[in-house]
Amino acid sequence: MSADHATDMSWFAWGDPDYATPLSDSLRGLVADALGAELVELPPPDEEEVRLPDPTLTPAALAELRNVVGEEQVRTDRASRLRHAGGKSTPDLLRRRSGDATNAPDAVLLPGSHDEVLAVLDVCERHHTAVVPFGGGTSVVGGVEPLRGDGVAAVSLDLRRLDRLVAFDPLSQTATLQAGLRTPRAEELLAEHGRTLGHVPQSYEYATIGGYAATRSSGQASLGYGRFDDLVVAMRVATPRGTLEVGGTPASAAGPDLRQLVLGSEGAFGVITEVTLRTRPVPEATHDEAWSFPDFDSGAAALRALTQAAPRPMVARLSDPTETFVNAALSGGGDGGSVGCLLVVGFEGTEQQVSDQHAAARRTLEQEGGTPLGSEPVSQWRHSRFHGPYLRDTLLAAGVLSETLETATTWSGLRPLYEAVTSAVAQALDGPHGTSVVMCHISHVYPTGASLYFTVVTAAGTDPEQRWWAAKRAASDAIAAHGGTISHHHAVGADHRPWMTAEVQPLGVDVLRAVKTALDPAGVLNPGKLIPQDGGS
Amino acid sequence: MSADHATDMSWFAWGDPDYATPLSDSLRGLVADALGAELVELPPPDEEEVRLPDPTLTPAALAELRNVVGEEQVRTDRASRLRHAGGKSTPDLLRRRSGDATNAPDAVLLPGSHDEVLAVLDVCERHHTAVVPFGGGTSVVGGVEPLRGDGVAAVSLDLRRLDRLVAFDPLSQTATLQAGLRTPRAEELLAEHGRTLGHVPQSYEYATIGGYAATRSSGQASLGYGRFDDLVVAMRVATPRGTLEVGGTPASAAGPDLRQLVLGSEGAFGVITEVTLRTRPVPEATHDEAWSFPDFDSGAAALRALTQAAPRPMVARLSDPTETFVNAALSGGGDGGSVGCLLVVGFEGTEQQVSDQHAAARRTLEQEGGTPLGSEPVSQWRHSRFHGPYLRDTLLAAGVLSETLETATTWSGLRPLYEAVTSAVAQALDGPHGTSVVMCHISHVYPTGASLYFTVVTAAGTDPEQRWWAAKRAASDAIAAHGGTISHHHAVGADHRPWMTAEVQPLGVDVLRAVKTALDPAGVLNPGKLIPQDGGS
Repeated sequence: MSADHATDMSWFAWGDPDYATPLSDSLRGLVADALGAELVELPPPDEEEVRLPDPTLTPAALAELRNVVGEEQVRTDRASRLRHAGGKSTPDLLRRRSGDATNAPDAVLLPGSHDEVLAVLDVCERHHTAVVPFGGGTSVVGGVEPLRGDGVAAVSLDLRRLDRLVAFDPLSQTATLQAGLRTPRAEELLAEHGRTLGHVPQSYEYATIGGYAATRSSGQASLGYGRFDDLVVAMRVATPRGTLEVGGTPASAAGPDLRQLVLGSEGAFGVITEVTLRTRPVPEATHDEAWSFPDFDSGAAALRALTQAAPRPMVARLSDPTETFVNAALSGGGDGGSVGCLLVVGFEGTEQQVSDQHAAARRTLEQEGGTPLGSEPVSQWRHSRFHGPYLRDTLLAAGVLSETLETATTWSGLRPLYEAVTSAVAQALDGPHGTSVVMCHISHVYPTGASLYFTVVTAAGTDPEQRWWAAKRAASDAIAAHGGTISHHHAVGADHRPWMTAEVQPLGVDVLRAVKTALDPAGVLNPGKLIPQDGGS
Repeated sequence: MSADHATDMSWFAWGDPDYATPLSDSLRGLVADALGAELVELPPPDEEEVRLPDPTLTPAALAELRNVVGEEQVRTDRASRLRHAGGKSTPDLLRRRSGDATNAPDAVLLPGSHDEVLAVLDVCERHHTAVVPFGGGTSVVGGVEPLRGDGVAAVSLDLRRLDRLVAFDPLSQTATLQAGLRTPRAEELLAEHGRTLGHVPQSYEYATIGGYAATRSSGQASLGYGRFDDLVVAMRVATPRGTLEVGGTPASAAGPDLRQLVLGSEGAFGVITEVTLRTRPVPEATHDEAWSFPDFDSGAAALRALTQAAPRPMVARLSDPTETFVNAALSGGGDGGSVGCLLVVGFEGTEQQVSDQHAAARRTLEQEGGTPLGSEPVSQWRHSRFHGPYLRDTLLAAGVLSETLETATTWSGLRPLYEAVTSAVAQALDGPHGTSVVMCHISHVYPTGASLYFTVVTAAGTDPEQRWWAAKRAASDAIAAHGGTISHHHAVGADHRPWMTAEVQPLGVDVLRAVKTALDPAGVLNPGKLIPQDGGS
């Protein structure tokens, strides 16, 4: 295993599995009781026993690729291939835990420049080889799994060597970052200039700048800093047809905004190699506060009021009664049920700005019927906000599925969508393998609407992958039927692809296909993702 | 002339020509001296003498169109055709003043519904007839001129009958408006709900909701309310391939944002028939203030500081020394030169918000070296802010070209772009027909950059249209060479089309063409606009 594997995530779990402590027997018993099911442990197999496909990349193609990126940067060893076999959804982890990595790539390529990416695309196009861009590998929608499509082979294009700050413009407050930079390193480079992106999703520690752009990521402080797509000023994209540069000026009326075609394109139109981003000053001051609301509706009304007024907090989120109860119980807070719904607000900026944000939020939250709980519950949340995926691994090893799904809709559509998804999932999981706990929070709010982020906990049963898909299908159908988007910040990948025709309609699918054909006529870029196979008009 | 012609603009001038008072002889002498040229009056010809093309729409096509929208809503009279012969750029007005309306449409259609628009597109596709959407007819880039393209005829699709508020969602604060609504009427309908769009471009009195979306309009309070594209939540679009619905949720990661392909598509991809928009409360309070800065650089630095901090004003603009001088002189303020550069800020919202915005702006502007001038200069600007096009008509009749052009770039690129455009225009106009006055303001500001809006005044000379094109070409080449966008808020139309390849590169042109072909395979929608004829990759 080469040195840079130190930064790879575990092949069967999120991040560094040492962080995922096993579930104690007593807690396991409590969970089993709550879910009304027997729990069967799901330990990972020996790495050497995992099934990988026989490589089908021809020696000629391999030689050309080595010529382009260098001998050392073409990895065909088992360990490298296994660690690029897919992302980190529960079905991904279940498959690998079952010893199945049959979609592992033929090779992992580590290009060192934009021009090397262009040259790789040229080789792969001529050799009918699928190219699957790989940033942090954090996809939970099947976005980085090396599907072959019509190709004879597949390579994973790991962008970790594109890790530089290319330019910083202090007047315009923009930074040009290479796509393979992980967030902590990007923030280190920006901190040297006193700047930050303020982009903090749960995948913060591993996800990359290019991945954020390709999937339209959204961070926990999206209310204050905007979604990642809001930060993007320009992008450089390598396509099989050559280089595409999009954006650059702060605003334009020169036709459609082609940045918005590249954002969310998930590697299907091209490989994003550089992103120019708006930056903010590292905040002078921060202040957090928790509030309690009697129920989800009154809490949601308070969030809406916060969002539609100004000044606004930088962070605002609300847990439903179930999530509020479970989080209180997990943090040792006892009967969390008595606190109703937990609403969290965070303020950042200059001392003056924090004080103004705080005063405005306080007025609004009191008016909407909230009770202040101080800062302590927020510091618990901040402390553990990257731990969710580790807890999921802990539970998975113990035979419990704990997976998330998310959507967004208008404020007026929020309550019907919340009810529809909650009941669709609960119904899909109720049966011989027990019941489920479905909880939800609102974590991204806009003047016109908000996101819903569901966590579903249930026993793995005898066929855990099918069990999860049943819940996911029920939820996705409910989302489509109620006018929600199939993804607010996780992207489409392979998993949401069946719902894309409902999302953009047959004519929208035609448009996506036309763009794909213009940029990737041979269809080598990330096949099987984003664009539905059928369903055009 | 039918009743609704009362709301048509003049065929040879902006708006209602009664508002354009003639230039007095003494002022005319002063202008001639300043421009170093003889001025030759350019009176409009008799309406009956203007040359229109012979109609080429076949009786069969005409019959089908009458069948679709109704006999009364297909206008083939001279007056209707002349009033849809093009937009309101100086070259447009010069051509019509010279008696040339040879691009007038064969017919003007007034559809009454989305379905009628779909049916019109079907008829026109089968009869090889170009369809040119027409909102307020305010285009200054040749966007509404009925070019035939490869078609045998052309119809102007006047959307004025699509004038309803379709839906208002008080919780989500969105309104769905039909595309043909002019702004004052749209604001009336919204005011019944206590809401406003806050979108106030110079074309406010005539421009339509659909036109704003199709051209990515930006209003004078864009700092506070956002550009028009920022307000758009969803759109309904009639295309020759059927209906395309884009957007609807407040944010999404379900692939590329197809709204952003429709925004700025200038009728080349489809006809926007409905737009769902974010609305704001009608402000409780407003306050305006003018400040003086010693020069353009210090004023621009102050604007930048205002924009990059929070809270921000709702309006912020800065005139360069020439514009400051000219405006002061025009408003009878005497030697405006002594005030350096005029910076205007406007605050809106609740009393508290206005007070907070004001306090923050005051701190910043004092820190940046500004001198407060009170509210009076702003009320002059507010009072006359829709009068610019009328003044242009006054000057044009007197033999003076007075035209505008605009761009945007990053803060760090602003000064070089300003200098390059100013000197390119001045150089192009200097010669036997005298000299020119080139003035500029910054009126749309963003954290990462700003727009530049130039006004050019020069004698018409012997071939005024060619004289203006020489200046426009010089400016556009300078913009492209210095990384500015070819349009910040006027769109592309026919006039900026030669610079679109530089703007989006050959590969970007390919993408636009691919989308066009997917939605309008026969190419009947607004041919000759937006997408360059050559220049793909």
